[in-house]
Amino acid sequence: MPVAMVVNPDIAEMEYAVRGPIPQRAAELARHGMRIISCHIGNPQALGQRPISFYREVLSFLEAPGKLARERTLVKLFRRNPMAFEGLTSDDFASDYVLGVCDDMLSKLGTGLGAYTESKGPCFIREAVAEYVDTRDDVAATAGVRSDPEAIFLTNGASEAAKHIIDILIAERNDGIMIPIPQYPLYSAAIKRAGGVQVNYYPDEDRGWTLDRSTLEDAIAQARQQGVTVKAIVVINPANPTGAVLPEQSGRLIVEFAREHALAIIADEVYQENLYGVQFVSFARLVGHQDIPLFSLHSTSKGFYGECGRRGGYIEMRNPPRLKNSSLSFADVLLKQASVSLCSNTTGQALTYLMVRPPPEGSAPHKRFVAEKEGILRALYEKATMIKAAFKEMEGVECFGRTGALYLFPRLNALPRGTTDFDYCMNLLETTGLCTVNGSGFGQRPGTNHLRIAFLPARDLLERVLPEWTKFHNEYVRGSK
Amino acid sequence: MPVAMVVNPDIAEMEYAVRGPIPQRAAELARHGMRIISCHIGNPQALGQRPISFYREVLSFLEAPGKLARERTLVKLFRRNPMAFEGLTSDDFASDYVLGVCDDMLSKLGTGLGAYTESKGPCFIREAVAEYVDTRDDVAATAGVRSDPEAIFLTNGASEAAKHIIDILIAERNDGIMIPIPQYPLYSAAIKRAGGVQVNYYPDEDRGWTLDRSTLEDAIAQARQQGVTVKAIVVINPANPTGAVLPEQSGRLIVEFAREHALAIIADEVYQENLYGVQFVSFARLVGHQDIPLFSLHSTSKGFYGECGRRGGYIEMRNPPRLKNSSLSFADVLLKQASVSLCSNTTGQALTYLMVRPPPEGSAPHKRFVAEKEGILRALYEKATMIKAAFKEMEGVECFGRTGALYLFPRLNALPRGTTDFDYCMNLLETTGLCTVNGSGFGQRPGTNHLRIAFLPARDLLERVLPEWTKFHNEYVRGSK
Repeated sequence: MPVAMVVNPDIAEMEYAVRGPIPQRAAELARHGMRIISCHIGNPQALGQRPISFYREVLSFLEAPGKLARERTLVKLFRRNPMAFEGLTSDDFASDYVLGVCDDMLSKLGTGLGAYTESKGPCFIREAVAEYVDTRDDVAATAGVRSDPEAIFLTNGASEAAKHIIDILIAERNDGIMIPIPQYPLYSAAIKRAGGVQVNYYPDEDRGWTLDRSTLEDAIAQARQQGVTVKAIVVINPANPTGAVLPEQSGRLIVEFAREHALAIIADEVYQENLYGVQFVSFARLVGHQDIPLFSLHSTSKGFYGECGRRGGYIEMRNPPRLKNSSLSFADVLLKQASVSLCSNTTGQALTYLMVRPPPEGSAPHKRFVAEKEGILRALYEKATMIKAAFKEMEGVECFGRTGALYLFPRLNALPRGTTDFDYCMNLLETTGLCTVNGSGFGQRPGTNHLRIAFLPARDLLERVLPEWTKFHNEYVRGSK
Repeated sequence: MPVAMVVNPDIAEMEYAVRGPIPQRAAELARHGMRIISCHIGNPQALGQRPISFYREVLSFLEAPGKLARERTLVKLFRRNPMAFEGLTSDDFASDYVLGVCDDMLSKLGTGLGAYTESKGPCFIREAVAEYVDTRDDVAATAGVRSDPEAIFLTNGASEAAKHIIDILIAERNDGIMIPIPQYPLYSAAIKRAGGVQVNYYPDEDRGWTLDRSTLEDAIAQARQQGVTVKAIVVINPANPTGAVLPEQSGRLIVEFAREHALAIIADEVYQENLYGVQFVSFARLVGHQDIPLFSLHSTSKGFYGECGRRGGYIEMRNPPRLKNSSLSFADVLLKQASVSLCSNTTGQALTYLMVRPPPEGSAPHKRFVAEKEGILRALYEKATMIKAAFKEMEGVECFGRTGALYLFPRLNALPRGTTDFDYCMNLLETTGLCTVNGSGFGQRPGTNHLRIAFLPARDLLERVLPEWTKFHNEYVRGSK
């Protein structure tokens, strides 16, 4: 007789559509030989995006520091007698700048990548993050408050960061966290897992996913009526799944709302470099001198870096709440939680450092770095534009908001009665191999249907599949599919 | 007015001595210029242990696959004209074996280290782990059951693995998990954090930390009397903090006990290669054909690898419990939980693969690999022996069990009345710079005092500090300190 047990229902009942039935069916079809175009997840390198060379060259030496001396010898020998290095050019050898960055990082790490670090990450990396944040927010010009390296916690990706904060904030079963609908299902899953209450608020799709105050007030009033203690509000900007860049005015509104209701802001800003001609305004900047708790999350997974597998990320905390039920500070509790896992992975930490310390103008790798960065961002925007153009050919498809992040989230207005966006996406997958995620996997206004598509596949792949999708779509909505 | 909030008391109240007040004081003293010898944590590379060259060479190429072609060109050029490579020898270039391993791993990874992998890790790594487990347990000879790659989950170190299992098993406030006392505080912290009950059982120190049945029966009976539903028993073998290798007979006893009480076994086997002349018998082998749920944990952090910072590890599951409150399988729930973090970090995954696939006899890196491995293990045992010898000079210090893992856990029998092992360790730190952890940080039989010391510092450092410690000790117990 096998042992039978009751397990944690909060974990068993979590939903996570991004790894749900549609991607699972796609994996099955792939095993049977079907060509699958994986647009269900923001995983750029899985779709051929190449890593930034500078990052990888540095990481390669950090792994094997003994190779630094060899590289210096090779450079010297090459310079002395390039003829002996048939087939190689000076580009095949590390620049002095790269070798210097490696020496510097290794000396600051002290013990290389193999040792546990401080639980919240090495001090020099947290300092570099703080500097990056201050430069990004133009602290000098705005006379704003500075980022504090002691309030920065390196994490295994932003997913772990979000879970850690939510786990601490949810103290009781009736504690709630406000999340935008649609949302990235990490948030609903983390709230469910922590045993808290998900409190939905609805950005206005037709106005480009912007906010007005009454939406937020209605949401919190209704939650309170049901006995929920609302602790925080999550904002994802640029948004996931909609891809929309939040207008500054909507951001200010959230800050005001959080201040008046004494909420913490959890600002998921992992797409802060996925902008296409639009400016990013951080929540740190919007909060400014106000005493509003803010947890800003960033990651090495998105942007033009796309290093998803590394699980690099950080929390930047400001104005942490005072604890009513403990003599500890919020930072103490976050540190305790980090300590139990000893530290985040060191490659992710090193990559976080490189992310916030791009090679400066005039350094040897700068030109190539900029070309790679701009090439990636340009290609992403072109692909988003191609897909949006295809929507125009599809009956009853509308797409709102200023394009950012890696996603489009079109509304499907013309689905046949009795069908859902889940049916549509499953059919789309089975007909064309295009793997997207149904809008209901992220939450949406009742009565609407959507899907999320990541604009990551190579152009030629898109050129082939977009007409197939358009054909599928128009047949589907006319009920002939 | 700063915002004030109630936070999760289970997290705020966790204790984690390994990152607690004594190491924190050590960090402070270090900032003031004191020479600190960090024996409070099993962090080998922080104390000068060098990484295994083979691992690092492979990782270095995985980071920058473009360098594989360059290396092949360099090897060709070197072979043709070694004179042009003044200062370098053939040892400075990668062997064909290493280049082949890299090609093979990259082709199996498909998208390199930068992409999210399957949530439970790439299939080829899970297959390699299963093969390693079967070879270790000599499945052919024992006609035992085989390890199933689908029941293997790669994790960010064994700490995450333990937390994931405990989080799933604790379904209610009165669910309990048995842990040995003393224990590694990850377990008490994870149970606390999950809102469950810690049920202590006490291996017999004077008999070398072995077990008898009545100890286990008493512990579970007492817990049940208090309304606790005991779900699982944790065993750490070789043990942390005691370092003791569990005799096979004690292991069999745990298996029998788990079977009769329908418990899952959580076997923390991260020190399975830290053995010094003693044989390791895995719980997979002890469970054999019996239908007892088993979660075995392993990690890249310990053994002779010592790659703590990489957060590489895995869960190997057997006979998972059937779920009473869900139509899902246990594996489904574990997968769901892994999915929410997308995947574990890819460098840790790659290192896990290398850990279970050492270079075979006859391959180019084999000789050096074996020399490095044996050198590390020999040095560890010598250092353990040196420290144990010093205990003989210290009044009232006894140390039990067959030495394994990276730790000794001596009992301090002669502390002056009114002082605790915490006081002793703090004083030891402040007097000699030697940073250990007090026994109470791990739990111990009431009325006893201990400390845990990791036998990791370099010999010459130990040679200097051991006499200082002995002097300190004898003064302390005589009350003159």
